[in-house]
Amino acid sequence: MPAERIGFLGLGIMGSRMAANIAAAGYPLAVWTHTPGKAERWAAEHGAEARDTPAEVAARSDVVVSMVVDGEQVASVLTGEDGALEGAQEGLVCVDMSTIGAERARAIGAALGRKGVQLLDAPVTGSAPRAEDGTLTIMVGGDAQAFERVKPLLETMGKLVVRVGGLGQGQTVKVINNSLGAANAVAVAEALVLGDAAGIDLDVLTEVVMAGSGASMQLELKGRPMRDHDYTTLFKAAHMLKDVRLCLEEAQRAGVPFSSAGRARDVLTATVGRGHGDDDYAALIEAIEGFAGRRLK
Amino acid sequence: MPAERIGFLGLGIMGSRMAANIAAAGYPLAVWTHTPGKAERWAAEHGAEARDTPAEVAARSDVVVSMVVDGEQVASVLTGEDGALEGAQEGLVCVDMSTIGAERARAIGAALGRKGVQLLDAPVTGSAPRAEDGTLTIMVGGDAQAFERVKPLLETMGKLVVRVGGLGQGQTVKVINNSLGAANAVAVAEALVLGDAAGIDLDVLTEVVMAGSGASMQLELKGRPMRDHDYTTLFKAAHMLKDVRLCLEEAQRAGVPFSSAGRARDVLTATVGRGHGDDDYAALIEAIEGFAGRRLK
Repeated sequence: MPAERIGFLGLGIMGSRMAANIAAAGYPLAVWTHTPGKAERWAAEHGAEARDTPAEVAARSDVVVSMVVDGEQVASVLTGEDGALEGAQEGLVCVDMSTIGAERARAIGAALGRKGVQLLDAPVTGSAPRAEDGTLTIMVGGDAQAFERVKPLLETMGKLVVRVGGLGQGQTVKVINNSLGAANAVAVAEALVLGDAAGIDLDVLTEVVMAGSGASMQLELKGRPMRDHDYTTLFKAAHMLKDVRLCLEEAQRAGVPFSSAGRARDVLTATVGRGHGDDDYAALIEAIEGFAGRRLK
Repeated sequence: MPAERIGFLGLGIMGSRMAANIAAAGYPLAVWTHTPGKAERWAAEHGAEARDTPAEVAARSDVVVSMVVDGEQVASVLTGEDGALEGAQEGLVCVDMSTIGAERARAIGAALGRKGVQLLDAPVTGSAPRAEDGTLTIMVGGDAQAFERVKPLLETMGKLVVRVGGLGQGQTVKVINNSLGAANAVAVAEALVLGDAAGIDLDVLTEVVMAGSGASMQLELKGRPMRDHDYTTLFKAAHMLKDVRLCLEEAQRAGVPFSSAGRARDVLTATVGRGHGDDDYAALIEAIEGFAGRRLK
């Protein structure tokens, strides 16, 4: 049985699936989540223990993993009132797997570091099905020794687990990936609307493009949902917009333009503005259709 | 031995490799190309016959394949002076594999049709290596019976051979594919420049993105050449620009916007303007670097 005691903060769509893989691997696990009562139910189901605050989770843990929505929430559960830092023993390693941007990750890491607690930023790509299968891609920024220590733990959740650089750089790689995904998804949506308008069979268009230089993971994943106007949530449009905005902030700090991401931000802003924030980001087809004034059949 | 006599017009980078596969399959083959003397040398090497004009090629052929640079050239070799139409017998099928846009293909098809000659438009994706291996993707527009007749011939050149619709629609699918490719390539170039500026190891960035939602054929094919500033030509920037422009014309005719392709047109215009028209379109990294004012290390 693995020796390290793990704490897990945040049992949402992603977190609940990721924590389940940690429990299944045999780690002693304590959990907390924001919704009252939910941690108790989850813990009973997965052979874990529930705690009332992140501080109480940290007090009995060697490693604390957090998977929440944004930088505000990460700051709250790690360094806020009743946060992990309040219960932490020296030598605790925090692994934040949320997507919060490089600057925020560095600020939180500095606050933890003043009390002898290390932070790794370890955002993930892959939606709920890959969280469930333990096949996420996990990109880690931070201290190399701390990374080696938690790598076996991360491998219960991910297939590709890579240290990409110092603290915050996991965030940078993640938001660049998602911005590329968003930009490619916008191009796919535009191509589908044009293909349809030009009388092309979209099954044939998809088959040919997937065998050609225009192929992308976005066409493979989102072409069908876009055509069906099926926005069953695998990754929320509002979260994709957040990630693209974090990437553009990073680009601005670096003094580098990223026009494709800027266009994706605009399209996702329109998508969320049309009321699709909680839908899958495949719903960006609505904004593209709205602009073109025609709807895929 | 296949019974139909084939004519081939245009022995450039792509055409010479494609015709070689036709010859290798045992079809009786006559060839012509614009450069004097070249057809004779090529024919001697590949067991084919050379002719002095497209009309002479057509006079002894059941099917004439053309693979030239643009619509002007296709019109010239098929319907111009000494063009295939002048030598054609009734029942000849012309298969134009160049990328010339849907409108042009339909106009040339109409001119041929008035003399009982059928046209299929059959543009390809895949660069020189896939032309050599006979593994191109070939998207065909035009009459279904004519398609069935030439399909075995096309399968000597391509792995995926699909009829996508009526005359001109092969063109539409092709230029949509290439526009998606160009748009994705622009996003890749921007992401590489940002990743580099943010201090990310680009090998790691590439590995992670290829395992994630930002993956694309363009990252796989052009990421390395962009980083190496190696523009060894597989597909010329000027030709990619031509295809994107044809797609935007098609979009305008359909009354549908295609912003990603519009941006790709601008970036490719700058690439060609910087003197990279004959280089591979991976050279668009130069325009992105020029805009950002920094160069990948």
